[in-house]
Amino acid sequence: MRPGCGSTSSARRRRWRSSRATASSPITGAANTDRLRRARQHREEIHEASFMKRLAVAVLAAGTMAVAPALAASGIDIVTHGVPGSVPACLACHGLDGAGRPGGGIPRIGGLDAAYMRQQFANAVSGARGNTVMVAIAKALDPDAMTAVTDYYARQNPPAVAEDAPADAIARGQRIAEHGVWSRGVPSCTLCHGAAGMGIGTHFPRLNGQVASYIQTQLKDWQAGTRRGDPMGLMAGIARKLTKADIADVAAYFAALPRLPALPAAVPAGEGQVGEGQAGEGQAGEGQAGSASGEGFVPPPDNAIPHGPFGDMVRLGLRIFDDPQRYAADYTGNSLQCRNCHLDAGRLANSAPLWAAYVAYPAWRAKNGHVNSFAERLQGCFRYSLNGKAPPLGDRTLLAVESYAYFLATGAPTRTEMKGRGYPTPDKPAMPMDARRGATVYAARCALCHGEDGQGQKTAAGAPGFPPLWGAQSFNWGAGMADIRNAAGFIKANMPLSQGGSLSGQEAWDLAMFIDTRERPQDPRFAGSVEETRAKYHEHGMSMYGQTMNGVVLGSAPLPPGH
Amino acid sequence: MRPGCGSTSSARRRRWRSSRATASSPITGAANTDRLRRARQHREEIHEASFMKRLAVAVLAAGTMAVAPALAASGIDIVTHGVPGSVPACLACHGLDGAGRPGGGIPRIGGLDAAYMRQQFANAVSGARGNTVMVAIAKALDPDAMTAVTDYYARQNPPAVAEDAPADAIARGQRIAEHGVWSRGVPSCTLCHGAAGMGIGTHFPRLNGQVASYIQTQLKDWQAGTRRGDPMGLMAGIARKLTKADIADVAAYFAALPRLPALPAAVPAGEGQVGEGQAGEGQAGEGQAGSASGEGFVPPPDNAIPHGPFGDMVRLGLRIFDDPQRYAADYTGNSLQCRNCHLDAGRLANSAPLWAAYVAYPAWRAKNGHVNSFAERLQGCFRYSLNGKAPPLGDRTLLAVESYAYFLATGAPTRTEMKGRGYPTPDKPAMPMDARRGATVYAARCALCHGEDGQGQKTAAGAPGFPPLWGAQSFNWGAGMADIRNAAGFIKANMPLSQGGSLSGQEAWDLAMFIDTRERPQDPRFAGSVEETRAKYHEHGMSMYGQTMNGVVLGSAPLPPGH
Repeated sequence: MRPGCGSTSSARRRRWRSSRATASSPITGAANTDRLRRARQHREEIHEASFMKRLAVAVLAAGTMAVAPALAASGIDIVTHGVPGSVPACLACHGLDGAGRPGGGIPRIGGLDAAYMRQQFANAVSGARGNTVMVAIAKALDPDAMTAVTDYYARQNPPAVAEDAPADAIARGQRIAEHGVWSRGVPSCTLCHGAAGMGIGTHFPRLNGQVASYIQTQLKDWQAGTRRGDPMGLMAGIARKLTKADIADVAAYFAALPRLPALPAAVPAGEGQVGEGQAGEGQAGEGQAGSASGEGFVPPPDNAIPHGPFGDMVRLGLRIFDDPQRYAADYTGNSLQCRNCHLDAGRLANSAPLWAAYVAYPAWRAKNGHVNSFAERLQGCFRYSLNGKAPPLGDRTLLAVESYAYFLATGAPTRTEMKGRGYPTPDKPAMPMDARRGATVYAARCALCHGEDGQGQKTAAGAPGFPPLWGAQSFNWGAGMADIRNAAGFIKANMPLSQGGSLSGQEAWDLAMFIDTRERPQDPRFAGSVEETRAKYHEHGMSMYGQTMNGVVLGSAPLPPGH
Repeated sequence: MRPGCGSTSSARRRRWRSSRATASSPITGAANTDRLRRARQHREEIHEASFMKRLAVAVLAAGTMAVAPALAASGIDIVTHGVPGSVPACLACHGLDGAGRPGGGIPRIGGLDAAYMRQQFANAVSGARGNTVMVAIAKALDPDAMTAVTDYYARQNPPAVAEDAPADAIARGQRIAEHGVWSRGVPSCTLCHGAAGMGIGTHFPRLNGQVASYIQTQLKDWQAGTRRGDPMGLMAGIARKLTKADIADVAAYFAALPRLPALPAAVPAGEGQVGEGQAGEGQAGEGQAGSASGEGFVPPPDNAIPHGPFGDMVRLGLRIFDDPQRYAADYTGNSLQCRNCHLDAGRLANSAPLWAAYVAYPAWRAKNGHVNSFAERLQGCFRYSLNGKAPPLGDRTLLAVESYAYFLATGAPTRTEMKGRGYPTPDKPAMPMDARRGATVYAARCALCHGEDGQGQKTAAGAPGFPPLWGAQSFNWGAGMADIRNAAGFIKANMPLSQGGSLSGQEAWDLAMFIDTRERPQDPRFAGSVEETRAKYHEHGMSMYGQTMNGVVLGSAPLPPGH
């Protein structure tokens, strides 16, 4: 069947390519053109579907129980010719470079992590996922062939292809992808799948440029439980919180992503500025989910950021918040983002939301023993949490983040203790905190994303992914998160991502203590010696700074230059 | 009758002095002592009353129509001996130094302005004020004698004597005296009568150490219309807004003032801090009037300023607000106080209340073309309105005023255009603005307090009184109040003090333009020449900067050194 299948595939590939070319050609926006294009797509899909049926019949007829010969096959051989007698050539559907086929719902697999793909084969064999065709192929491939094929496709880098979709669907999808729907407990897709959905590590595949209909099918399968085997049930849990429309929009967004500008266009601006020279009032834009705090107060949606220079300052603040290494490079000394600890870009209650902090300043702080303005409070974030330098007062960086916080606080009553402020401290644990127990919980629930070494994970391109929890690239010993109580509060309320509240209080305390037994950058308030520094700042029972772990005194890292 | 009268007076003076000594001796607070003291005072008062009756009979019997001899009498002669046959010795009641008599309701007149006292004689003659005795005396004194007597008493400086009163009455009286009851349109007494009620100029007599029963009688007379002749009806209008309790409390306060600490004791603190390390919620204290904005929002009363370092910062802000020359000397370049333009210490709606400004920042400002934090906005107040230097960001001065504004904004919704913000611009005038008409209004309605020369008035001790409206000690050309629109808005809503709204819109515009035709300190943004500076900052139709008045170009003042 190989030649026939190959020739069919190649013919189909040509057809698909022409279809793709049409789809990615500029759209004039005229309704007629749209209608014509949709009709053509529909025909293509019917055609592809019947092709899939025929392919499945062929594979099944070849005998799914037949195992491919043990002869070490090269990836390219199997991809181009299949395994004679049992497995069709992969390129028949996935193409030589693994680009996938929008029309047929065939996923883009070129460049996916090899281990991830092998896990999918394993899942297909175990019945945890897969369609008729792929399950048959998975069962027919021997381990070496599987390795060869997955290694082959992992090395590919097919050109990023964009599917088209209505602009409003893409915009809604982008919002979910980048901002989540935290009011329903849905974190942004990019938190796990990486900036621009480029994928992170073994467990979080690239979604950027993935075939829309494939994304939709998978999310529906996660919902229905016909796809399983995701680590910690993360994806299934999130999929169940998505509506049908969410799924369609998110799929449209990721499929269209390769043709979208590298930086998201300025969000459509509403009215909201109250400054001199401008007037109006904040309002949620149409179709905007907004983000509920879950505690009563709801900050305005991003599309209520007004036009004009104040809005520009707010937008800059949001960008700094998302990517301080890029937008506040001078003041950032590690690879954390503000949003790592302030989930939902500073909106989420019980995750130190900015709106609750904004209305609580000026205030006296025990940390420095005087009354701090909000701007001075922000300086601390750069100095400690970002292990950088405090921007001078009046610096645009501070003003931008302050403006963003002020925007989020729109309507919040001044000088009021807002429900959801900071991190709620979990109840006192039944047993004393134990770092060893914490290490076990860490391995089971945290290492997937933050890595066994706690160093987090980035996208292949080095874009921010999961934050490092200790080490040189994490917050320093002076940060609020180095206080076990804060860390336990954050963990209990918010971790693992999308599963906040699932850990027991005891687990949260143990975990927080475990994390605090790892080394991290020196406290910038360093008082000359670790003992002195501990005595001045860490003798409150909630810091491991200055304690000896495995024969090493925590807090022994030298101060970075400039501190 | 002179010797008898003199001896009676002298005997009475001894008795009164002993009574006064009792009254001003420390009170143990025991109810019995209080009761005894009150009973004694009551007896004294009956005694004094019958003495007054006898004195009146004597004066009337002497023939009120008899005019004192034209022989130039010295003040001391008349005071000690009266005018034989017509006027009893003044010291019989007022004492040699004009200290007055608390027991008999005899006012302290020593040190009062001579012209003020002569006006009171004239009012007594015209029937606009006065009791039987003083009316008879006023009618009996010839002009020279009147001058001599009033000049004599004006030169006296009797020791300040304090009457005692319950502490809570004094505290309530102090609040009205220093803060007014703006919710009922009552400005603070000290705005006209000077800091600590020490009196200002000819029209606003000293109240500090004045006899309580006299103050009460006068306020009741103003209310009833049996005392009249106050310039512009200011005092009568205010008295009619006072309750019986207000009058008693205010009288108690001013009578007790000489023994109160020079600086008011820290206001009793409630709870209100939301900063870290402190918690609680703001609440109005018992018996506190608070100050309504008149527009819905009511800032918390001063006694809700919390204990602790945050509260200390708020209190410092309030002190700066009241007296920047003392508490922010480094940054103040004229003799204005913040409260001059922000009435009711920044609380009053339509008088640029701080709470409305606080929630409106950060915001873009046309004035400097970028987004300003609230702290930067405050810098402008020092640079322009106070014609000083902007405190550097992070300076305690800015933080204190920001904390005070934040305190006043407690509960105000963040980033909301509050009703009552700034100064409401009056409707476009029917006739074009006219400085000449404005000058006429100025003379009739403003000069009383601000002086014909616009330089305001201070207390005799040099303490702040009425602010200068132009000249070297006023705001500079860069200030918001140098914009005719702002000035017209402030004037229409708030001037004359306690009579806001009484001027027509046309009068407000004309007045504002007139004030803007006077010279004032150079705009600190000076661009090298008046023409250039006008072109850059003043070409908006609401500034006279750069225009020629009486042959002189406005804005020609040199920049002060350091600008």
